[in-house]
Amino acid sequence: MSPSLVANGDFAAVKTAPVSGRLASVYSEVQTSRIDHALPLPSVLRNPFKIVDGPASSAAGNPDEIAKLFPNLFGQPSALLVPDGADSVRSDQKLKIGVVLSGGQAPGGHNVISGIFDYLQDLAKGSILYGFRGGPAGIMKCKYVELTADYIYPYRNQGGFDMICSGRDKIETPEQFKQAEETAVKLDLDGLVVIGGDDSNTNACLLAENFRGKNMKTRVIGCPKTIDGDLKCKEVPASFGFDTACKIYAEMIGNVMIDARSTGKYYHFVRLMGRAASHITLECALQTHPNITIIGEEVAAKKLTLKNVTDYMVDVICKRAELGYNYGVILIPEGLIDFIPEVQQLIAELNEILAHEIVDEEGLWKKKLTEQSLKLFDFLPQAIQEQLMLERDPHGNVQVAKIETEKMLIQMVETELEKRRQEGSYKGNFKGQSHFFGYEGRCGLPTNFDASYCYALGYAAGALLHSGKTGLISSVGNLAAPVEQWTVGGTALTSLMDVERRHGKFKPVIKKAMVELDGAPFKKFSSLREEWAIKNCYISPGPIQFVGPASNAVNHTLLLELDAQA
Amino acid sequence: MSPSLVANGDFAAVKTAPVSGRLASVYSEVQTSRIDHALPLPSVLRNPFKIVDGPASSAAGNPDEIAKLFPNLFGQPSALLVPDGADSVRSDQKLKIGVVLSGGQAPGGHNVISGIFDYLQDLAKGSILYGFRGGPAGIMKCKYVELTADYIYPYRNQGGFDMICSGRDKIETPEQFKQAEETAVKLDLDGLVVIGGDDSNTNACLLAENFRGKNMKTRVIGCPKTIDGDLKCKEVPASFGFDTACKIYAEMIGNVMIDARSTGKYYHFVRLMGRAASHITLECALQTHPNITIIGEEVAAKKLTLKNVTDYMVDVICKRAELGYNYGVILIPEGLIDFIPEVQQLIAELNEILAHEIVDEEGLWKKKLTEQSLKLFDFLPQAIQEQLMLERDPHGNVQVAKIETEKMLIQMVETELEKRRQEGSYKGNFKGQSHFFGYEGRCGLPTNFDASYCYALGYAAGALLHSGKTGLISSVGNLAAPVEQWTVGGTALTSLMDVERRHGKFKPVIKKAMVELDGAPFKKFSSLREEWAIKNCYISPGPIQFVGPASNAVNHTLLLELDAQA
Repeated sequence: MSPSLVANGDFAAVKTAPVSGRLASVYSEVQTSRIDHALPLPSVLRNPFKIVDGPASSAAGNPDEIAKLFPNLFGQPSALLVPDGADSVRSDQKLKIGVVLSGGQAPGGHNVISGIFDYLQDLAKGSILYGFRGGPAGIMKCKYVELTADYIYPYRNQGGFDMICSGRDKIETPEQFKQAEETAVKLDLDGLVVIGGDDSNTNACLLAENFRGKNMKTRVIGCPKTIDGDLKCKEVPASFGFDTACKIYAEMIGNVMIDARSTGKYYHFVRLMGRAASHITLECALQTHPNITIIGEEVAAKKLTLKNVTDYMVDVICKRAELGYNYGVILIPEGLIDFIPEVQQLIAELNEILAHEIVDEEGLWKKKLTEQSLKLFDFLPQAIQEQLMLERDPHGNVQVAKIETEKMLIQMVETELEKRRQEGSYKGNFKGQSHFFGYEGRCGLPTNFDASYCYALGYAAGALLHSGKTGLISSVGNLAAPVEQWTVGGTALTSLMDVERRHGKFKPVIKKAMVELDGAPFKKFSSLREEWAIKNCYISPGPIQFVGPASNAVNHTLLLELDAQA
Repeated sequence: MSPSLVANGDFAAVKTAPVSGRLASVYSEVQTSRIDHALPLPSVLRNPFKIVDGPASSAAGNPDEIAKLFPNLFGQPSALLVPDGADSVRSDQKLKIGVVLSGGQAPGGHNVISGIFDYLQDLAKGSILYGFRGGPAGIMKCKYVELTADYIYPYRNQGGFDMICSGRDKIETPEQFKQAEETAVKLDLDGLVVIGGDDSNTNACLLAENFRGKNMKTRVIGCPKTIDGDLKCKEVPASFGFDTACKIYAEMIGNVMIDARSTGKYYHFVRLMGRAASHITLECALQTHPNITIIGEEVAAKKLTLKNVTDYMVDVICKRAELGYNYGVILIPEGLIDFIPEVQQLIAELNEILAHEIVDEEGLWKKKLTEQSLKLFDFLPQAIQEQLMLERDPHGNVQVAKIETEKMLIQMVETELEKRRQEGSYKGNFKGQSHFFGYEGRCGLPTNFDASYCYALGYAAGALLHSGKTGLISSVGNLAAPVEQWTVGGTALTSLMDVERRHGKFKPVIKKAMVELDGAPFKKFSSLREEWAIKNCYISPGPIQFVGPASNAVNHTLLLELDAQA
C-alpha cells in the first residue's frame, strides 16, 4: 500500500537554510532531504591508508616538450591509496588549503569542497580551508572566505557553484603568477585544489610547477569537472557532473518522446549542450533511443556536409512516413556546425569578406565566395543567411554560436521534404518543434553517483595534499563497483598532456577526450541506431530519483567504457 | 548509511513491456517501478457505497438559455457517493463502456482509464471497456480497441496518451452526432467517458443530452483534464495533469535559478506553456520564487501595455543592478501577448492592412495604422516586426502564436536598459537567455498526486455510469486530506455552463477558470513578489520524487484554494 497523499502545507518552502552563504534561501523539501544524505566513502578512505607510488610517468604526446615545460614535475609517478595495516601514526600537521571552482557549473562541485573539508576535519584536525571567490580571479585578487562547517553545511549535495562561485579567468601572465604566489604566501597555503575542466587542470599543473620551481611549499591538486564529459582517461574515468546533466536532459527527452508518440504529428529537434565533444548527445541517445542522433565526431571523421546531414534525416523521415509514423525525436549536439568542414570554410570566407567588402543588396559580394561556399550559403535557410550577415561579435566576426542549429535543420529538412513531395517520394506530414536543453542541466541536484563521486574526489584531494603531493589530478576508479570498492589516488597531470603550437610557442594542453568512433559507447549506439530510426524504441528514464529504483544507477557511457577496459 | 552505487548494467533499458500496446517499448527502471505502484483509493470507493443526490442545480450563467439548450439534463442534481451500511446487493449488470481521450496530453490520462477498468473488474465483472482511438474522431469513425487487463497493464501510472491516443476533433454537426449514435448502437454502449478540457466536457454534455433526447441508453460522464489548470470549480477542485506539469517546469526553473546565482551574469526569461490562463506560471512562481513573474490576467485587468511590462522588468533589473545582482529569473506565460489589448489591436489592424494593401519598402503602408498601433509597432524589435509582416497562417493572418515572447522581451529590455544607461540611471550588465518549457511537461510520469487523483476520477466515472448517471463530470474532492478521506461524486455539467453568442446563436460553454486576482494563490504571490524581486529567495524543487521526501506533496495552487474555501 502506498503512503497517503499528505497535504502538509509546507511543500517547496520548507525551512530556512541554516546560517550564512545561501542566507536568504529557503529550501524545498527535496533540497532539505539531500543536505543530510549520508555519503558513502570508498573503504580505503574509511580506514588507515598509505600512499604508494607507481612507476615514472610520461606524457600523452611530445614528452620532450612537456619535460621542458614542466622541469620540476615531469615524470612524476601516479599515487595510489592502499590500506595501511600498521595503522601508522599520522602527522598531526595542521594544513592551510585553498579551493577554487573554475569554469562552467557542474552538479557536484559543492561535494568536492565538502570532501576536502571533511578530510581535513577527520584527519588533519585544526586545518583551515579557504574558498577563493569567483574562480581563479579570486586567487589573483586574494578574494576568499574561510569555509567552516556551518558555512558548508547548506551546500552539501546541492547543485550549483554558488558557495564560492566560479569564473573563467586564467592565471597566465608572469604578473598573474606573481599575484597567485603573493596570495599563497599571504595565506600561508600548504595546498590548493583546482576544480575544473581541461584548461583549468592544465593551469593547475602550471601553478604547481611554478610553486615548486620557486621552492614554495604550496602544492596543487586538480579535480576533473565538466558536464561535457570530455576530460577523462584511463586513470580518470569520468568528469563529475556528466552523470547528472545527462540524466536531466534524458528525462526531458523521454517526456518529449512520449509526447511525440501520443500526438503523432511532431518531429522534435533537440539540441543538447556540449560544444566541443558529443558525449552528452551520445549518452542521452543510449538512455532514450531517439530516431535520429547526430554525433559531431562522426560528421567530422566522415567529412559530412550539411546536405549529407539533412539528407540522412530526410531519408529516415521518409521511411517512417511510409510506415505511418509522422513523428519522431532527433538529437543534435550543440557544436554540430563546428564539426562540419564546409561550414568552417564558409564562416572563414564570410569573416574575410565582411571585414573588407561592402555587402550590396544585389548580392554581387557573393561572387567573392568560393564555389563550394556559395553553394552552401545558398543552401542555408534565408533566416540563417541573414543572421550570418547581420549578427557579428565585437571583433566583427560571424557569431556561429548564436545559430540555433535545431531551427536551421528544421528549415532545411522542410525544404528537402517539399522537394521529395514534388518528386512523389514523400507523402507524409512534417511539423518540426525545436528545443535546446542546456542551462537546465548544469545546476541540478547531483545524482547519488555524482554526489558520492565528488565527495570521494575531494576527500582524495585532501589526502594527496596531506601527503605532500603536487601536480596530480584526484583519481577515483573502479566506478562500476559499489562505492566501498572504489580505488583512490592521483594521476600526474603532466601524463595527460600534449603540446599545441600557439603564436609560435609550444603550449601544454590536456587534450579533450572526444567521442571515439571505435569506443564502446559509440559502437553500441551505431549497432542499434538503424532499429531506433524505424521502430519506436523510446525509453523514458523519468525524473532522477534519490531513493528507490534507479537511484544508484550509473550512466551508460561510463559503464560501457569500464566494461571495455576490463 | 546510504546504499552503495550498484552498477547493475541494466540502467534505463530494463525490461520489455509486457504484451501489446507499447509493443516495441523497453522501459526504464523508473517506468517499470511505476507500473506496479499500488494506488490508494478513497475509502468510500473501497467499501460498499450508494449514491445520494443533492439539490437541483442551475447554470454558471444564463440559466434560461442553458435550460433551453439542455432540456433533458438541465437542473440535474449533483451526485455524492456515501458509505452504504446496509451492504446492499449490487446489480450484476454487465456494462459496455467506451472511453475517449480528447485534446492535448496531460499526465495521468492512462490512470483514468485504469480506474474505469478496475471499477468494472471490481464491481461489474464481465463488463467490456472500449477505447476509442485518436480522440472523438474514433467515436465518429467507430475506431476502437477492446481494453483488456493485459492491454492496460504497461500503461499504468505512465505518462502520455498513447494507449489509445487523442485528437482535437469535435462532435458538432448533426451528421457527426448521427455517427456517434451509430457507434453507440453498434457497440451497444451503456456509457461513454470523455476525458478532456472545457471544450471536450461541453461536448460530452451535448452528447449526453443528445443520447437522452433520443431515448438511447448510452450515458456520458466527463473527466477534468488539462495541464493548464483552467477547468475547475468548487466541486471539481483541479484538472489532472496540472500538478505534474508544474512540478516538471519548476524543477527546470529551480535548476536555472541556481545556474543564474552561480554564474551571476544571466537573466533567464522562461516562457511557460498555458495560452489561455496563467495558472502554470503562477504555480511555478509559488514553487520557485523568481524575481519577476508576469500573470496575463493581471496584465489584462490593469490594461497594461507592452511598454508597461517592459518598464516593470527594467525597473527591477536596475534595482537589482544597484544591489550588485546582474542576474535573475523571469517567468512569462505563453499567452502573454494575447492579454495585452494594444497588441490585439495592432494585430487586427495588420491583418486588415496585409489583406488589402501592398506593403511598400518605404513603409508608407504604416500610415494606415492608428497612432497607438504605429507607436507600438515602432516599439517592437526589428526581428519581431519582420516576423509579423512575413509569417502568415494559411488564412493570411499574422501568426501571433509563433512569436517567441521571451526573445521579444529580451530585446525590448535590452533597448530600454541601453536608454537608461545613456541617462546614467543604469550601470549594470545585462545578458538575456531565453527558454520555453512546454512539451516537456505534458507527458511526464504522473506524480503520486496525479496518479491517485486520476485513478479516483476514473473509478468514480465507472460508479456513476453503473448507477445510471449521465451528463455529470467526475468529481473528487477534499484533496488536501489523505487519499482515504477524499470525497467522490459527480457534478452536473450544465451547472458549469454559460452561453456565448457565436454567429448569432447561443453556444454553451464551460467558462475557463482564469487566475483570479482576488484568489488565494495570486494574493499570496502578490504579497511576496516585491521581496522576491530584490532578494534572491530562489527555491529549487528538484526532480519529482516517487518515494520519500516530497513525493506526496500537493501543489500550492490547489492547497491555497482549498484552504481559502475551508
